[in-house]
Parts: sequence; structure tokens; C-alpha cells
Amino acid sequence: MTIILASGNSHKRKEIEKILPDHRILLPSEAGLTFDVEEDGETYLENALKKARSLGNQAEYPVLADDSGLSIPALNGEPGIFSARYGSEETGRNLEAGERNAYLLEKMKGVKNRQGFFVCAMVLYLSPYRFFIAQETMDGIITESPRGEGGFGYDPVFFLPEYGQTVAELPWELKNQISHRGKAGARIRSILKELKEHQ
Amino acid sequence: MTIILASGNSHKRKEIEKILPDHRILLPSEAGLTFDVEEDGETYLENALKKARSLGNQAEYPVLADDSGLSIPALNGEPGIFSARYGSEETGRNLEAGERNAYLLEKMKGVKNRQGFFVCAMVLYLSPYRFFIAQETMDGIITESPRGEGGFGYDPVFFLPEYGQTVAELPWELKNQISHRGKAGARIRSILKELKEHQ
Repeated sequence: MTIILASGNSHKRKEIEKILPDHRILLPSEAGLTFDVEEDGETYLENALKKARSLGNQAEYPVLADDSGLSIPALNGEPGIFSARYGSEETGRNLEAGERNAYLLEKMKGVKNRQGFFVCAMVLYLSPYRFFIAQETMDGIITESPRGEGGFGYDPVFFLPEYGQTVAELPWELKNQISHRGKAGARIRSILKELKEHQ
Repeated sequence: MTIILASGNSHKRKEIEKILPDHRILLPSEAGLTFDVEEDGETYLENALKKARSLGNQAEYPVLADDSGLSIPALNGEPGIFSARYGSEETGRNLEAGERNAYLLEKMKGVKNRQGFFVCAMVLYLSPYRFFIAQETMDGIITESPRGEGGFGYDPVFFLPEYGQTVAELPWELKNQISHRGKAGARIRSILKELKEHQ
């Protein structure tokens, strides 16, 4: 199936191609579509739906959209839906991933409850009344300092006790199996398979 | 898997048991839970999520919730999320299904565009950050008069051109394959299978 990915990010496209290897994934620009959405929802789910709808109503193919982030209970759920721009408003400039991690670790200094979870809400949108959603998590612990070179975003400061590694230290195939995005993608993959077989 | 159905309706339980035959479906009362939700969302999805959350936060098992209705473009989407109580406010009493169908046909008198679609939003809720949703439709035509004895609700006034029958005339097994609720259930069934196999 050809699917439009509601993202301008070719890195995310590669990740999705590995999760949905039987499908052809196009970025909006490759399908001649404009993608420009204000992510002002209050939840991951609302933002993902908003992205999906903005393209779904102009695309001839199904649209896949996701919204992801890191929720930390000790910080009242922050960075949450603001994960990608966390600290940028407070510091007055666009932080890069390394700076953002430093900003987060500073906030977590002395905090005992270091639990966190990554969340991914993924939407497969076929029409305004026909869509499928999977929201999955990956649970872990916020480290005291970054570790590992792989992954991206908060991966170096997110430790998985059952693997004894941060997400940035995990082999890439393993990350795609156990991550919030990998698991949500697996649910969507099941639905796509079922759709193909039964109608 | 044992699943709590967010409904007080044993008829709906039977339908879901047929759609998810490999799972044990319990009504809230059978799990010692109280189910009392005001369905005041603005969409099928919001109402289904609200029902799922109200039980999910007290249940030890996954919760399945759905919200369904009939949307008619010529009536600006009515009865929509008010399908189960359509006409009751206007007439000042609780209409039964037959009266509700008569009320709808009266509203549709002389209306040329008789397209309608049934919608079902179904939620499988595992935790506040982990849930799966399928929203499916069944497209058809609003009849001029009721036909058929099977099904329930608006089924006798909903005609499927490709079968030459109203939903109330369809064999029950066929209805469960092609209906909005049957199709949404099939997507959830895929996800449950995937969950069982891969974690």
C-alpha cells in the first residue's frame, strides 16, 4: 500500500520504512502535498490526529501520522507534548538535542523519582470517519548523565533497567522492537495486514 | 485474554463475544465495577475514550469501549452521537427504536440525498498511556419505510445497495462481517493477536 507520512523528516521516514517494510512510504512533498500544522493539541493523540487530518483531507492515499514525547511523572508529565522544543522558550533560543538533554538533567537534579516513559500515538487515517490509532509506551529511568551514540533526542538520558543500557546504546533493531514507536507501528502493521486480507 | 466491556448491555456483549471469540468478555458488574458515564463528548471517538477511561482506571483487565451511531450528511450529520436518543428531547419522551425510525423517516421526507453511514469507534484501553482505537463505517441509503426483522436500532431503515437488503434483513453472520462494529472489532482482534504473539 502507498502511505503518506505526515512529517517533513526523512529520518522518521527511514524509521517508518523499517517498521512497515511491505508498504511504500511517501513524504508529503513527494506526493505534491503541503504539510504545515500547528501542533497545539493537549495530548499526543490530539496532535497526531491533527497532523493526519490536515493531509488526509487532501491526499488520495492513507496518511500515517504520529506524535511522540517523553513524559516524566516527577515533572508533572513534562516535557510531554513539548518534548521537541523543551527548554527553548525558557532559554530564548532553539536548543539542540544535546543542550535539551542537559536542560532536562538540570531540572531532574536531586529528584529521587526518576521514572519516565516515552509515548507514541500513531494514526492511520483513511477518511474523516475511518481511522486507526495505536498509542504505546516505553518505560525507563532518567540517567544522571548522557550515555551512548545511537538513537536521537532523549535516547542518551533514558536508561532501560532490563537491558542495562540507555536507548542510545541499544542495537538499532532491538530499539525498533521495544520502543514506543516500534510497538505502535507493529499494531498499525497488524491492521494493515488485516485490511489487505479481508477487504 | 479477559476484557471488560464498557457497557451495561448484554445484547452488545453477545455481539462482541462473536467478534472476539478467543477472549473472555465481562460486563462491568461481573467484574465488581461501577459503570456510569455521561456521554457528552463531541465525537464518537471522544465518547468511546471517555467510557474506556472511566473503567480503565479502576479495572485490572483491559477495557473495550465503543460508541456508534448513524450519520446522515443531508441532516448535517444527525442523528450522529445522539443516535440512541434521537427525537426523545424533541418529543418529550423516550422513543423506542420503531418510533425513532419513524421520527427519522419523517425528517427525511422529501430529502433527495439519502446517503447515510453507520460509524463505530472502538477503543481497547490498557492504561492511560496505552490504548488502541479503530473507527470504521458502513455506507448505505436511508429507506422510505422500515424493512426486516433482524438487527436493532436503525437497521430496518438502512439499505445496502450491494446486497439489495436493509441491515435488518441481512443474515446475522454477514452483518457482523460488514458492519461498522464488525469491522472495527476485526481491527481490534488483529491487535490483540499481535499483542499475544509479540510480547
